[in-house]
Amino acid sequence: MLSNSQVKHINALKIKKYREEYREFIAEGNTLVTDLVNSPYEIAGVYALSAWITSSLDLIRNNKLTVFETEPGDMERITSLSSPSPVLAIVKIPPDAGEIPENAGLTAIESVIPGIFNDLSLMLEGISDPGNLGTLLRIADWFGIRHVICSDNCVELFNPKVVQSSMGSVARVKVLYTGLPELLEKLKGSLPVYGTFLEGDPVYGRKLSSKGIILIGSEAHGISEELSGFITDRLFIPSFGSPVNGKAESLNAAVAAAVIIYEFRRRINVQQ
Amino acid sequence: MLSNSQVKHINALKIKKYREEYREFIAEGNTLVTDLVNSPYEIAGVYALSAWITSSLDLIRNNKLTVFETEPGDMERITSLSSPSPVLAIVKIPPDAGEIPENAGLTAIESVIPGIFNDLSLMLEGISDPGNLGTLLRIADWFGIRHVICSDNCVELFNPKVVQSSMGSVARVKVLYTGLPELLEKLKGSLPVYGTFLEGDPVYGRKLSSKGIILIGSEAHGISEELSGFITDRLFIPSFGSPVNGKAESLNAAVAAAVIIYEFRRRINVQQ
Repeated sequence: MLSNSQVKHINALKIKKYREEYREFIAEGNTLVTDLVNSPYEIAGVYALSAWITSSLDLIRNNKLTVFETEPGDMERITSLSSPSPVLAIVKIPPDAGEIPENAGLTAIESVIPGIFNDLSLMLEGISDPGNLGTLLRIADWFGIRHVICSDNCVELFNPKVVQSSMGSVARVKVLYTGLPELLEKLKGSLPVYGTFLEGDPVYGRKLSSKGIILIGSEAHGISEELSGFITDRLFIPSFGSPVNGKAESLNAAVAAAVIIYEFRRRINVQQ
Repeated sequence: MLSNSQVKHINALKIKKYREEYREFIAEGNTLVTDLVNSPYEIAGVYALSAWITSSLDLIRNNKLTVFETEPGDMERITSLSSPSPVLAIVKIPPDAGEIPENAGLTAIESVIPGIFNDLSLMLEGISDPGNLGTLLRIADWFGIRHVICSDNCVELFNPKVVQSSMGSVARVKVLYTGLPELLEKLKGSLPVYGTFLEGDPVYGRKLSSKGIILIGSEAHGISEELSGFITDRLFIPSFGSPVNGKAESLNAAVAAAVIIYEFRRRINVQQ
């Protein structure tokens, strides 16, 4: 049986303030926990039903996991999900990927965001919905984008809903929070910055590079005026809605990102 | 001030049972309500702050809306949102689009789903998350897909979260709930049925028709074995995830639908 202080500690981690204080977050479900165990993240402890423990002995041994056998009733007291899963892990929040120093040159940026000058990266401005951020990480992961650069006002990465909706991608994609105008100022001239807008020339008719930054704006306001100035290429996903019946005003931020990233990846493959 | 029975009636519509009993649903927010007013849907009543009423006099007059001026405190008592919007509409659920008779021929199907044989339609199997269904409607709307055909076990169209996350697309896209195996059996040989799978040949290398059915499976289980048998073309969205670091196991259902539909629409335009 779990002690009250264990239950209290886990439930505290549902709140951002305590995640920051304890530098820990929670993850639930067999796939997600397994993905995190097999990632560079450090696991502080695992709470699991006896059935999960029995079927996961190799995983537990190979990774020297500290496991607390947990009764179904206790799982219900600690879960963030509508129905508890058989396993919940407490995961350590790693030290920040590193600040980009104020007077950083391109080499310093490359050391904080390795590969940024040779690949596509995803940049997110003000994404506030946890489900959207999780879905964006999953899209980046699927399409092999290694770095997601978030504005400081994006929703927090370790919010349980972000972690869950990323479906394990949180364990594979590198996420950095930083001031976007400062970073884009430093990158000026070194990389194309692609922005998605609601008008312009269709993306499929445009020349696209195999490296650069794809900038996605917030759900409510799109790309801010401040960041618009840094965009070198405006992209547009054509709508086929009927002008008579009206049409959707926009696409969901994650959906727009997926279509644009798909188009970049398609090109690389078609060119090969 | 709203009467208690008005508040009670509106709150009852948050529950499926009462939506079915009263044949009404709720929609909130200026854009969504305006879209619904300008659609074939019939508005039973509008609850709005005085500021909304003042700025919407033309809309109210031209559409002969019944409007109840509502205090901010009362808006809080009736809203489904975390912060109430300035306007909430009660909208009548239209009669069912029509059953597809058991012995229906293609002509009968065309009369229930006009244009099905000349365009792309989206078919959804067991989509259970309201946000996903709303996003799928928004995607269909953006890309000019007029018909969405849902299996009977998809989440209900008039669930407030579906209505809200469709961002007004619920007013423009025609949605039909029906038994999918029966319908696909009748359509056999008349239309290609495209299914999205986690392996196969990349969609961008495939021949795609400008008409047919795009079938999207459920979030948890994908396309069922029963429906797989009806698929004439298996499509795959290639992943660029690293085989070393692992990659996302799948894409969100709405994201996969968006990429596939984009690819169909891109082809049409490139061919022109």
